Formats: sequence, C-alpha cells, structure tokens
Amino acid sequence: MKLFRFGAFEQEKPGVLMPDGKWLDVSAFGEDYSENFFATDGLSRLAEWLQTQADTCPEVPEKSRLGSCIGRPSKIICIGLNYARHAAESGAEPPKEPVVFFKATSALCGPNDELIIPKNSVKTDWEVELAVVIGTKTSYIEESEAMNYVAGYVLHNDYSEREFQLERGGQWVKGKSNDTFAPLGPYFVSKDEIADPHNLPMWLSVNGQKVQNSNTADMIFYIPKLISYLSHFMTLLPGDVISTGTPEGVGLGMKPPVYLKPGDVIELGIEGLGTQRQEAVAWE
Amino acid sequence: MKLFRFGAFEQEKPGVLMPDGKWLDVSAFGEDYSENFFATDGLSRLAEWLQTQADTCPEVPEKSRLGSCIGRPSKIICIGLNYARHAAESGAEPPKEPVVFFKATSALCGPNDELIIPKNSVKTDWEVELAVVIGTKTSYIEESEAMNYVAGYVLHNDYSEREFQLERGGQWVKGKSNDTFAPLGPYFVSKDEIADPHNLPMWLSVNGQKVQNSNTADMIFYIPKLISYLSHFMTLLPGDVISTGTPEGVGLGMKPPVYLKPGDVIELGIEGLGTQRQEAVAWE
Repeated sequence: MKLFRFGAFEQEKPGVLMPDGKWLDVSAFGEDYSENFFATDGLSRLAEWLQTQADTCPEVPEKSRLGSCIGRPSKIICIGLNYARHAAESGAEPPKEPVVFFKATSALCGPNDELIIPKNSVKTDWEVELAVVIGTKTSYIEESEAMNYVAGYVLHNDYSEREFQLERGGQWVKGKSNDTFAPLGPYFVSKDEIADPHNLPMWLSVNGQKVQNSNTADMIFYIPKLISYLSHFMTLLPGDVISTGTPEGVGLGMKPPVYLKPGDVIELGIEGLGTQRQEAVAWE
Repeated sequence: MKLFRFGAFEQEKPGVLMPDGKWLDVSAFGEDYSENFFATDGLSRLAEWLQTQADTCPEVPEKSRLGSCIGRPSKIICIGLNYARHAAESGAEPPKEPVVFFKATSALCGPNDELIIPKNSVKTDWEVELAVVIGTKTSYIEESEAMNYVAGYVLHNDYSEREFQLERGGQWVKGKSNDTFAPLGPYFVSKDEIADPHNLPMWLSVNGQKVQNSNTADMIFYIPKLISYLSHFMTLLPGDVISTGTPEGVGLGMKPPVYLKPGDVIELGIEGLGTQRQEAVAWE
C-alpha cells in the first residue's frame, strides 16, 4: 500500500495511491497517518476499508501539494556515515558502530516543497536517504526480530547545513533541523511492497547533473542491525522515522565543496519509493 | 499558575496546584498540557475557567502518581556544558556558542518515577537542570524579544549514560534518550511566578549527600540567548522543552567517577519549581 498526504502545510489530508494509479482522497477514513494510526494496525484497517469504500473516494485534484507522507512522528533518527565512500568523502573513518543523531520533526515538509536555505547559510547540502518507518513500539529488540517492527519505507532528503553541523560547536543536530530540511515522500510504501530494502538503486541530481548514484546495498549497517541497535538506547514508537544514511556524492565531498544556492533544482529518487523535486530559495 | 499531570503513565490527567495548596483535578477542562494547549493560550483560558469552576473540581487523591507535567512535546532540546565549572569537570573548555543536543521525548516520565538503569549500563549519571517551556511558535527571534515566547519553567533531571554518550561513537543523543531519562516536574510554573529565572538555587543529592549545589545565575548562556540562538537553527513550537544545562557535581566529574546503581535515591530541586525523588532500579 502507498500512502500520501496532500493539501496545505500542517493541514494535510490522507490519501492512497492505488495499484491502478489513482490518487484517492481517503479523508473519509477519518485518520491521519501518525503514531496512533500505525499503533492500531491502521494499514490493515485502511486496506479493509478500501475494499468497500474505494469507489466512493474522490480523486485528488491534479497539482495538489503533497505534504510529508506521514504525520509528525515522535522522532526522526538519522544514521551518520553509513556508506563507506561517504564516510571517506567526509574525511571520516567508517564507524565501528552506528553514528546516531536526531533531526527536529519541525523540519518535515512535502517532497516537492521549496527548500528554504536558512538565513546566514553558506553550506546547505543534500543527502538522498532510505528512511524506515516503525510500525510497532519496541525496545531492546534483537536483530533477528527487528524487521517485524517495520511498517514501511520512504524517500528522504536529509538536508544538512555543514557549517551549522560541523563548525558551530558541538552536535550535528544544529545543521539538520531547519524548516524544510526533511522532505519525506512522495508516498510511504508498506513493507510488503519492497522485496529487498537492501538492494534499491538511489540517486540525486542537482540542476540535472547526477551527483549521487548508489544502492542501499552499500550500507555499512543494515536495517535490522540499526533497529536493534537504536532500540537499546531509546524506545522506538509507531511512526518513528529512521533515516539510514546517505551514499557518496554530497556537496561537502566535492573538491572544492559545492553548496546549494537559490534557484538550484534538486531531484532524487529510490527505486520503488518514487521521486522528489525541490527548488532552493533564499530565506526571507 | 502551577500545572501538573497525574495518573497512569501515558494516561495522565491534567491538574492545577492552587495557591491555597490544593491539588485539583481539572479533567473537566478537557485538555491536556500539550502543544495545542500552549498554542491556543491555554494558560489564560484555564485561569479564566478556574475562576468559576475551581470549586467543582475534585482534589487529586493522595499518593497519586505524578506524570511528566507537560504532554509529549515535539522536541526536548538540551544545552551542553552551560555552566563553566561543569565544563571543567567534564574535561571541556567553556563553549564559545551553545552546545545543543536532543533527547528522545520517549524518555519523559514523572518526577518521582523510578529511574531505570538501562541494560548494560555502567555509567548512568544525574544532571539537575532548569528547563524552559516554549509558549509560542517562533523562529529567527532576537534576544530582546525571546522571553515573550516563554510559557514557563520546570525542573528536569537530564539523566545521561556516559558510556553511551561519549564512548560509543558519534553523537550524545545515544546516552540521553533511554526511558525514564527525563523526569519533568513536579509541576510546570508559569513565567509570571518566577521573578528571575537566572537567580534560582538548584541542588541534587544522591543517597542524602548533596552533590550538586549551584544557582542558575552561573549559566554561561542565559535563556534569551539560548532561545534566540536555537531559533536560528530550528523552529520552536509551543510546548517544546529547552533544558538549560547542569552545574558541576555530576558523577562523571568525581575522582574517581561515581555512577548510579540499583537502590540509589536521587533527590533534586530548584527554588520555586519543587522537588523530585527517583529511586534507581535495574532494567529487567
């Protein structure tokens, strides 16, 4: 099942992209795609509801704005340096255990919203990532059981302001949390539709030039390991987002580094998870 | 106004500690103390409601469990090394600009709940802190305006697992986010009741021995600076918690370091904000 949200920012309505390609408005189902939806087996309930109600659902108007495909979760957990060649381009050794940081959930936005380059930013950078959405609350889970706690997957651009992240003292969260730094979507894809999340081509282009071109197979720590590892440090809640890291090809790694400026167009995709397109604009 | 929440974990009901010392159940007001409450001027609305309804509110049964005094916020932002002598005991220089990290909101608990020492933890440590609760959404706010965005204050014990935080690779969030690592309360105190948040005695004891004994006057970066600074890196939402750092006297700073073990009793307080008491137990 593919779930999306559409409409004005923070007033999004739920939708389902049907196998026949129709984008249905399922507002009549009466629930947003947030913690409670996942915690109460919303995916199964919605699928059952659609069996009798899909014909009554209106199609979403063309050119509707897409929002983040899930409602604001309790946390967005990101994994740093989880691709060896990205670690190298960042001047870091491949980590011995997962590097973990948070991104403010206020950074969430739709897949095609404008990227707002923060005030005083000179090093805004891109990062195509596969994100995992947790389906069931868990802590201290073993790797062998971890995939049972996954609801599905989603495309994420983990925008990063490198000066804020690396040169302003302390922790990375400072460079990860500005508004519009977490476009999520176009749609959430339930776990059953992705045969192998560790073999998905992924790419990102800036102004038509492909700069990231890799495959989730290149992750250092795979999803079961990440979920198990994280669950030893914090309880994972339904709807929580785990963004699994970016491959090589970010602006920071170029020689000389290249960062985004107003007017730049960023496009990205992961096989099976759709594509995003952002145009960069200046903060004002 | 002093707000608290009581009842079973994650099923807490709202209460008000009245000037006459009565702990009133204000469930009839019909709102939890969460983002929407603060965003819609809930403090004023509740005060007005109490003028006619306080007499009809039942008192909270004695020995009721207190929960986190505010509902789960979008983020708990913590400031690191914000007291000079704590920076020194941690082996760090006083920071040139605020050090910022996040704590998972799933770590929230009540002020007198047991502290669960995480599985495999050997370095669980304490940190008494003054936390600020945001009242109004803001970004890019100037220092001179920042206090207008504060709803009030609350006592916080920023529990920290030092091995997870400092020796497991990467970012501090790993050692800050286990369940029960964020006791918040006993009650939220609205801004008008604290004449000067930068002159509040604060203390923490372990098994009756006072180990932290300081004053919020010793902060390196004061609250207006912190709010303004943070708001340049992320949008602050109503209900968001900013924990302003701990003074010297944590276990990590002792020679040799001292960490918590099952059976230890941790008590702490800040003048005007009440006290907390946690007993440490082993994870099981």
